[in-house]
Amino acid sequence: MPLVNVQIIENVFTSELKQEIIQKITDTMISIEGESLREVTWVKIDEVKEGNWGIGGHPLTAADVHRMQMAEA
Amino acid sequence: MPLVNVQIIENVFTSELKQEIIQKITDTMISIEGESLREVTWVKIDEVKEGNWGIGGHPLTAADVHRMQMAEA
Amino acid sequence: MPLVNVQIIENVFTSELKQEIIQKITDTMISIEGESLREVTWVKIDEVKEGNWGIGGHPLTAADVHRMQMAEA
Amino acid sequence: MPLVNVQIIENVFTSELKQEIIQKITDTMISIEGESLREVTWVKIDEVKEGNWGIGGHPLTAADVHRMQMAEA
Amino acid sequence: MPLVNVQIIENVFTSELKQEIIQKITDTMISIEGESLREVTWVKIDEVKEGNWGIGGHPLTAADVHRMQMAEA
Amino acid sequence: MPLVNVQIIENVFTSELKQEIIQKITDTMISIEGESLREVTWVKIDEVKEGNWGIGGHPLTAADVHRMQMAEA
Repeated sequence: MPLVNVQIIENVFTSELKQEIIQKITDTMISIEGESLREVTWVKIDEVKEGNWGIGGHPLTAADVHRMQMAEA
Repeated sequence: MPLVNVQIIENVFTSELKQEIIQKITDTMISIEGESLREVTWVKIDEVKEGNWGIGGHPLTAADVHRMQMAEA
Repeated sequence: MPLVNVQIIENVFTSELKQEIIQKITDTMISIEGESLREVTWVKIDEVKEGNWGIGGHPLTAADVHRMQMAEA
Repeated sequence: MPLVNVQIIENVFTSELKQEIIQKITDTMISIEGESLREVTWVKIDEVKEGNWGIGGHPLTAADVHRMQMAEA
Repeated sequence: MPLVNVQIIENVFTSELKQEIIQKITDTMISIEGESLREVTWVKIDEVKEGNWGIGGHPLTAADVHRMQMAEA
Repeated sequence: MPLVNVQIIENVFTSELKQEIIQKITDTMISIEGESLREVTWVKIDEVKEGNWGIGGHPLTAADVHRMQMAEA
């Protein structure tokens, strides 16, 4: 405890970015719960295939997400 | 909110049928919750490998499921 | 197979609406996969506490969702 | 996309800390993926009952976790 | 790794039986993976409300499950 | 009901061992809940890619887990 499960679409993040997600989310949790819980702080990334995740009924590809990232916030 | 997570065995449904699952389940949810929630209605399909899903201890392949589909209801 | 997991915030839907979600999503899945799979079509609703679900960092209450439902689509 | 699911034992974190988890993990994800994805960055906290989470076969209470937090890292 | 997530309907199992589930599943996993992985073998029980789990579209109560248990195998 | 979801890293267990996991966990559940529930006892194995599961912030490969298994308990 805790387990953090990050659910994403495959091909959106590189291996380096996924490693960064694991490290930064672990550090974020530890900043709240304390360093003593580090070894029981697990972060797991689940990736679903492109086309398997729909928002409002529209399935997304990695390219769709990349276009959303390019748009101004 | 809501997130609908559909868990299936890979190779059971074609890409077209998976897209149909996403669209129809989204529409089903919206028929209950209202059109205003469309953009926050997410449907995600998780696929597990053939052999990784057991019913009563017997692992299923996609072919097993196809045979079940052929049986009379 | 399949298992459909519907994740919602508690107090958003009444018991009647949750029963409707289970029945309609089951029927939706069966309209795609065939009546023979009815008994192995499971729909499970997971409810999280109000305040435990954040969009863009803002935790939502059931009242927040009800306000979103009132807004025009 | 993405959905971050934080799984914890109930009564370990206060409401304030859970709100902090939602905000900080959202910000962590956005620092990696970009501000444009904020509205599609969801963080959901699932809480299980005390006694329902076992490590190495030993079920944990919130008090057990608090004792672990007190131990030196 | 591994995490075993047991999903049940509330009020079906007593606290003693849930503790037995955690211990026995942990032991089962360790009989396969080896004793060295005990401390990273987690078993978590998620309980959904009665009426929130439907099989073939019919929501189940704990009493329904108890009746199923009484039936001959 | 019940659904048991076993989450592991890919390439840690062979197909034979995964089949053993499904059979033995099913039998374990049935030893507690009774034989009548066999057909509604589902065990599903979810596998994440190597590098997608971090403990304390360190992503694990299958080789890492194999090394842990070799260590003395």
